[in-house]
Amino acid sequence: MSSYHKPEAKVVQELKDIANKLRIHSVSSTQASKSGHPTSCSSIAEIISVLFFNTMRYKISAPRDASSDRFVLSKGHAAPILYAAWAEAGLFPVDDLKNLRKLGSDLEGHPTPRLNFIDVGTGSLGQGLAIAAGMAYVGKNYDKANYRVYCLVGDGESAEGSIWESLHFASYYNLDNLCVIFDVNRLGQSEPTSLAHDVETYRKRLDAFGFNTIVVDGHNIDELVKAFHTSTTTKNKPTAIVAKTFKGKNFPKIEDVENWHGKPLGAESERVLQHLRGLIKNEGPILLHPQKPLKDDAPVVDITNVKLSTPPAYKLGETIATRQAYGNALVKIAETNPRVIALDGDMKNSTFSEKLKKMDANRFIECFIAEQNLVGVAIGAACRDRTIAFVSTFATFLTRAFDQIRMGAISQTNVNFVGSHCGVSIGEDGPSQMGLEDLAMFRSIPGSTIFYPSDAVACERAIELAANTKGVTFTRTNRPATAVIYDNNHVFQIGKANVVQKTDNDQVLVIGAGVTLNEAITASHDLAKAGINVRVLDPFTIKPIDSSAIIANAKECGGRIITVEDHYPEGGLGEAVLSAISQERNIVLKKMAVPKVPRSGPPTALLDYYGISAKHIVNAVQEILKL
Amino acid sequence: MSSYHKPEAKVVQELKDIANKLRIHSVSSTQASKSGHPTSCSSIAEIISVLFFNTMRYKISAPRDASSDRFVLSKGHAAPILYAAWAEAGLFPVDDLKNLRKLGSDLEGHPTPRLNFIDVGTGSLGQGLAIAAGMAYVGKNYDKANYRVYCLVGDGESAEGSIWESLHFASYYNLDNLCVIFDVNRLGQSEPTSLAHDVETYRKRLDAFGFNTIVVDGHNIDELVKAFHTSTTTKNKPTAIVAKTFKGKNFPKIEDVENWHGKPLGAESERVLQHLRGLIKNEGPILLHPQKPLKDDAPVVDITNVKLSTPPAYKLGETIATRQAYGNALVKIAETNPRVIALDGDMKNSTFSEKLKKMDANRFIECFIAEQNLVGVAIGAACRDRTIAFVSTFATFLTRAFDQIRMGAISQTNVNFVGSHCGVSIGEDGPSQMGLEDLAMFRSIPGSTIFYPSDAVACERAIELAANTKGVTFTRTNRPATAVIYDNNHVFQIGKANVVQKTDNDQVLVIGAGVTLNEAITASHDLAKAGINVRVLDPFTIKPIDSSAIIANAKECGGRIITVEDHYPEGGLGEAVLSAISQERNIVLKKMAVPKVPRSGPPTALLDYYGISAKHIVNAVQEILKL
Repeated sequence: MSSYHKPEAKVVQELKDIANKLRIHSVSSTQASKSGHPTSCSSIAEIISVLFFNTMRYKISAPRDASSDRFVLSKGHAAPILYAAWAEAGLFPVDDLKNLRKLGSDLEGHPTPRLNFIDVGTGSLGQGLAIAAGMAYVGKNYDKANYRVYCLVGDGESAEGSIWESLHFASYYNLDNLCVIFDVNRLGQSEPTSLAHDVETYRKRLDAFGFNTIVVDGHNIDELVKAFHTSTTTKNKPTAIVAKTFKGKNFPKIEDVENWHGKPLGAESERVLQHLRGLIKNEGPILLHPQKPLKDDAPVVDITNVKLSTPPAYKLGETIATRQAYGNALVKIAETNPRVIALDGDMKNSTFSEKLKKMDANRFIECFIAEQNLVGVAIGAACRDRTIAFVSTFATFLTRAFDQIRMGAISQTNVNFVGSHCGVSIGEDGPSQMGLEDLAMFRSIPGSTIFYPSDAVACERAIELAANTKGVTFTRTNRPATAVIYDNNHVFQIGKANVVQKTDNDQVLVIGAGVTLNEAITASHDLAKAGINVRVLDPFTIKPIDSSAIIANAKECGGRIITVEDHYPEGGLGEAVLSAISQERNIVLKKMAVPKVPRSGPPTALLDYYGISAKHIVNAVQEILKL
Repeated sequence: MSSYHKPEAKVVQELKDIANKLRIHSVSSTQASKSGHPTSCSSIAEIISVLFFNTMRYKISAPRDASSDRFVLSKGHAAPILYAAWAEAGLFPVDDLKNLRKLGSDLEGHPTPRLNFIDVGTGSLGQGLAIAAGMAYVGKNYDKANYRVYCLVGDGESAEGSIWESLHFASYYNLDNLCVIFDVNRLGQSEPTSLAHDVETYRKRLDAFGFNTIVVDGHNIDELVKAFHTSTTTKNKPTAIVAKTFKGKNFPKIEDVENWHGKPLGAESERVLQHLRGLIKNEGPILLHPQKPLKDDAPVVDITNVKLSTPPAYKLGETIATRQAYGNALVKIAETNPRVIALDGDMKNSTFSEKLKKMDANRFIECFIAEQNLVGVAIGAACRDRTIAFVSTFATFLTRAFDQIRMGAISQTNVNFVGSHCGVSIGEDGPSQMGLEDLAMFRSIPGSTIFYPSDAVACERAIELAANTKGVTFTRTNRPATAVIYDNNHVFQIGKANVVQKTDNDQVLVIGAGVTLNEAITASHDLAKAGINVRVLDPFTIKPIDSSAIIANAKECGGRIITVEDHYPEGGLGEAVLSAISQERNIVLKKMAVPKVPRSGPPTALLDYYGISAKHIVNAVQEILKL
């Protein structure tokens, strides 16, 4: 790396001018939209100017170029200045900025990847750094390329614990290709931040978290240029630049004043714009041009058409937990595609993701007990189609990252989630460890696909399908071993249910999945002995759910459905089926689910105690026959 | 405070003996249950011994006594040793410990308040400290009492960002009545923790986070007694004790060895028990007795029968946002009960919780942008019925704390959540700020009550009802102003819907809430002009939902229901109604909801763009008439 040369005075002046030009755009565009956050833009104007016109190496012609430096604006509400930077760099006409926040414009209130220069959505605070760390991890360990990742974090959002999870992750993995800038502008939304301008406390904390920490005047071009240069040349440690700034900088009477968060300047705007114009030396076109990457060294990657290396190989009736089949499937798809990776939160010996670690330790990322960062890193690793990422932990601990998963949908992520230890069937560990709301959570994610495999064969195919599916996928796995019920060559499809028990005179359609499918099969045998035939259907995917199969089979069963799920009553299998049949007259449904907070006990005893065992299904069938 | 006196040698020996006796119980009880975490118990044996038999002041006869010191076991999987300590202290027979994890015993795998000596459930890691901080905040600022709060955190869980949010909160508010003990036993579940035994890094981080930090040998009684004494006498700062320990301490061949997490000792247990017995000098009954509180200085508190100080006072047709009515109601109930408090995450000027701050700043707790800690602090503040806590932020940011809310149900919390800015009706800020999955989330919480008030009158009454309701409550408020449709003296009840539009020949029942109720009313007027009468129903509570009113009205409307909600299609209003009617033949339902990730735009344009405006309701009514 080259040694540091102070930039020439004219470059410094031009970078100053660019900062003020970006401020002007931030004020004007939020005036046009009558909403937005101009003061939050203003505090970072010099940072953005230096990054986009001096430090970063990227291609205006190809914003998603694999070898280019990445930028994540964690404080997404400062979107207008980011849009302005790309416009001034030449990506699109500056004039488009006036469409900010208008329906039909992709220049939304917060950045989303609808824009080709945005990798991930931001706007829920404290999430950008995990994503940036995931990108940096991939750059350093998989792409082994020169590109660097920059992430701009607001001081308000640095109160989010997720930021500290990510800082720890980044230093633990020596991500020296990552540079975090903290915009310490002192003011939050409703009052000053808890640390205000105490940059020394930021420095101490970041030092203690293993960062190369540099405190700068965030409005001083020289200091910024030098700090970024130091970041580039520092090995084995990520860099944190703590930039002391002022909210509304260069907006006279507004700078550093409370109650200006998230408001266009309104009547003050003309006065401010005039002042800003007065600060600019070069009123003409910008004289600096972004630097291109030093080399195009990121490899071409293919994440399509992933296959199991060998088909499932189980014996009918053999008992094996689906979580174990997940581990098997993960290894098999990793054998056919080198970009399959797995991430876990210190649960790998329970979720069986450790099988991939044993096969290829490089493709396993241990994220320790920090689920928000775990999910964010995966979103970062998977973005720009660099990897096929599988995230596993106990299903219920994925609730820790609901906000990240929700934002993942906005980020158009393809991350695959695998949640083990669902339901009361985990037994003695008790309710804190039981996934009983995970289906409700993942069903609410737009565009999600939810697999609920009922045996090992189905689980291997679910994982293979998940790897090839766009959007968020979730696969729900069981702790206890259950019997293999499908032939190894059974063909599974998303949205295609399987009837696993059927006669010509079935009176009730029973729908279960995982352990409850097994209970349903047992119940069907018991009922058959009593002369009552029921049909048993395995939905395979809970979203999309196979509406046509459910409706057709229900009609053949007297319009009677029983759903039985190891989940709370709301938002899960039962309600998915209800939505599927909602426009049918003459179908009734009885929903069986875990009705309240469960307690510790043996798995089979709990299934019975909470009313979702074969015995209870038998009773429910007898009840619904009266309807 | 008294100056420090080193404990007598015989006291030290007795505390050592107690530690090993607790180890014996931990081994024996997990042997009996054939599952559990004896090695995680063993690392904290001396800490528990010193806390329960030397440091803490509490009443065995009244574990929830208001003036007693509190203890939160954040690493809930070490439950067996906590149970053993209470048994040895005399609360219940030691013999009961063998019922660990059995169905019917309250000695569950992880602690829950089913036990009278447990204030809150733990077991999802990284959550105990926020709760402890909430308890300490109440002790210092509201109870103004001498009791202290101790929280034991595992090193594995200290990777959770929520821990760092809480550390920051505790030092920001100078909670010198809080003492956190970090059990640095080096080993996580599936591998060593990222910091292993690097206690100096823990010290640096905790120092930087504003704690009085003391590093000790966690198995040394003298060092522990002294550290706890220092904690008690340190003013204006919370204390962190970093205890270097060994997982499986005093279990020969198991101590500090990997792959012993979460397993009973099995064949090794007899050997280990024999070794432990050999370490004990006093084999007879324990000679030390817990100390009682110095004084019973916590005030008697009444959190029942909370009322609005004055009835709602709005004009029919006046437009006002329900979020604003929330602020009004909060002030009114705070006027009648001094224990009403509000907590927010730097959104108080948007959620309108700032109205309480303006009325009585002492009863407002600013938690800054750290929603996990926000929720945990509220759970801590509300436990043992010390306060009536209201937590507000944007509805969608409550997803950040789903795991905490889920655990709240296990903790039997009565915290009231208020989520503003739901749905696409917030407009230009875009999808990252829109609550579109909050109903799905809160419906899945066992025992929750969900209010969705459609005007300001309903909102004030919802808040009054919430304050008096056990369990988690959630009130969903709107950003835009909507018309007042109820008389100020209208009586609202949980689970009781209101028909707001009705004729004798209605053909469809339209159910909406909040902004969509307004759209439904508009649609009903438009349809009436076209000769089609529809009935409009406001459910008021989404959970419980008024099944009988819905079914009765649907039957009067040709068995046709349309639900329309500013929420994603899954888990919200539509599916709540579907569940209510599931066992009725001959009712069809058409669900209208936001079908995908929305974008920025004006509120009314977005309602229309995403198909939930009056115009679309009119179309849907015409469609459903064909069914």
